[in-house]
Amino acid sequence: MQRSVPQTFDRVLSSMCTDPHPAARAAAERFLATNPGDPATYRDVAELEADAVATLGEMTGLADPHGYVTSGGTEANVQAVRAARNRRRGDVSDPNVVAPESAHFSFNKAADVLDVELRLVPTDDDHRADVGAVRAAVDDDTVLVVGVAGTTEFGRVDPIPELAAVAHDAGAFLHVDAAWGGFLLPFTDRAWSFAHAPVDSLTVDPHKCGQACIPAGGLLFRDRSGLDSLAVETPYLESTSQATLTGTRSGAGVASAAAAMDELWPDGYRREYERAADLASWFAGELRSRGFDVVDPELPLVAADVSDSLFAALRDREWRVSRTDAGHLRVVCMPHVTREALSSFLADVDAVR
Amino acid sequence: MQRSVPQTFDRVLSSMCTDPHPAARAAAERFLATNPGDPATYRDVAELEADAVATLGEMTGLADPHGYVTSGGTEANVQAVRAARNRRRGDVSDPNVVAPESAHFSFNKAADVLDVELRLVPTDDDHRADVGAVRAAVDDDTVLVVGVAGTTEFGRVDPIPELAAVAHDAGAFLHVDAAWGGFLLPFTDRAWSFAHAPVDSLTVDPHKCGQACIPAGGLLFRDRSGLDSLAVETPYLESTSQATLTGTRSGAGVASAAAAMDELWPDGYRREYERAADLASWFAGELRSRGFDVVDPELPLVAADVSDSLFAALRDREWRVSRTDAGHLRVVCMPHVTREALSSFLADVDAVR
Repeated sequence: MQRSVPQTFDRVLSSMCTDPHPAARAAAERFLATNPGDPATYRDVAELEADAVATLGEMTGLADPHGYVTSGGTEANVQAVRAARNRRRGDVSDPNVVAPESAHFSFNKAADVLDVELRLVPTDDDHRADVGAVRAAVDDDTVLVVGVAGTTEFGRVDPIPELAAVAHDAGAFLHVDAAWGGFLLPFTDRAWSFAHAPVDSLTVDPHKCGQACIPAGGLLFRDRSGLDSLAVETPYLESTSQATLTGTRSGAGVASAAAAMDELWPDGYRREYERAADLASWFAGELRSRGFDVVDPELPLVAADVSDSLFAALRDREWRVSRTDAGHLRVVCMPHVTREALSSFLADVDAVR
Repeated sequence: MQRSVPQTFDRVLSSMCTDPHPAARAAAERFLATNPGDPATYRDVAELEADAVATLGEMTGLADPHGYVTSGGTEANVQAVRAARNRRRGDVSDPNVVAPESAHFSFNKAADVLDVELRLVPTDDDHRADVGAVRAAVDDDTVLVVGVAGTTEFGRVDPIPELAAVAHDAGAFLHVDAAWGGFLLPFTDRAWSFAHAPVDSLTVDPHKCGQACIPAGGLLFRDRSGLDSLAVETPYLESTSQATLTGTRSGAGVASAAAAMDELWPDGYRREYERAADLASWFAGELRSRGFDVVDPELPLVAADVSDSLFAALRDREWRVSRTDAGHLRVVCMPHVTREALSSFLADVDAVR
């Protein structure tokens, strides 16, 4: 079957996924026909998953992590909500989850799937969770409060320790969605992880800034009871229960996550964080100097107010870019996003205006 | 990172996954860094997914299929239950699903995730759904009845047209789990698909007998309203809603499914069905001639009563085999299972007894 060569990444500026690292790609190809959902049969890849989880724990400040490599951030977030719901099942008959409106739409999906109420609260003027608004929305039926460490639209880090306090005061769990931010934040001074606050669960995706192949997300629990609350009995696999949302799973994704982290944690990821942060800072400056209203980047994600016509013209020139709900252009400085590409983008911006 | 070479498939006799077809593997490698969850950015793989869904429709008797390539059979089954629950949300406050006890444990998982009651009913003496028992378990709150076309333990095909009638009499939907059977049954005279009964939704997995790479399951709905009931709004992707359970998805899996079916449907799959059916028939005969109690294979899955000690001894000799709940050895005649391997297995059976 002949198809055109798949597009390159050069002009993909708003994605939180990237070109996988060569070591990740090689591992994916070697383990393409394995299934970590059947660990007794596929023992090598089961070991790689344990390695990957251990490293994710190390990155996120958890010495004894309980978790697994998910199909992605959506599964991790859905499962975090499910674990909170399941662990409070005896006490709470009408569970709700409180999250800032900047939370990823996977929480909307989780609410529908799991039959829980999602209470989205407004963010503050700097696009971060407003702790007071979260506190006001929490009640006795709240099973989970969500904080985001690297929001999808603006790359913001929520005040995680304060949100943890609000959650625990109400008897709820605290989940941090660090799907994108988790491979950047270890190199900053932000308070975002298991090390900085009594966080109960955390999402961190190797197939985003981790440079692993899709599908490779990550879900970690501080306590084993989190993972146990997801377990379903498996009568005919060689193991006795299964906590994952999917059944058969991709060994390629798991192996690529282990390989990428083996290769890149911590120095490679640190170098990439520094490159991306510099690039974002430069790019934000270039946009500001052209008169655009730019949201000052906290992490390497630059959002700027652009007109509908400029946005449409840039898309016509084959830039794969998307916008925030409020209409900002979003440029995510992933490993494949180069200064050359952004210079070319700026040249097109200049040509179009 | 050096690891031992991943195990080969030779001794894996109880898995419903297999070594992917070379065309599938090549396609997976080409599309490894694409995400069909963002179809406006990754347009080539979005087209491949449409091709794959069209072919799955052709195989299962549905001219105008509404569906997608899932992460696997578990997602397909969970989503089928979710669609039934969501479509009956206005009328039914305490939904239940009725399935034969032979249904895959993904329905147990679906029940927990989706907060619905699962009513498992006993099968008949030949391990098929007992229509009378299903009818007795169905009530006004039943949103879905499940029939299996190729059960996990015994490879049985349930009486699908009768189950569809029971479901529709009660105002419930009928879902067929043909995850494994769907690539075999087109070459038989069984009544199992959209062509044979008013089936509402169906699971059929390219990464099982379709010889695609993991992750590639399939979910099809007869009516668009099924898929629509799963849709969640997506404010910042270039598309407006997303019906899938996961978010970011594996382009490798989707591309491999399209490539495998392009290469093998229908003649390659037909030849493989015939080979597997002959092999299963021969193997069942060999076990019978040795005095084992063998469940007569309906599809290429041979189940035989073996003692605990024989089973343990075979596992000690590195045969990756599993058992049914009642203790039968299960041998699934997948494309990688050869007569040579089964002869070698029989030699070990003889050596151990």
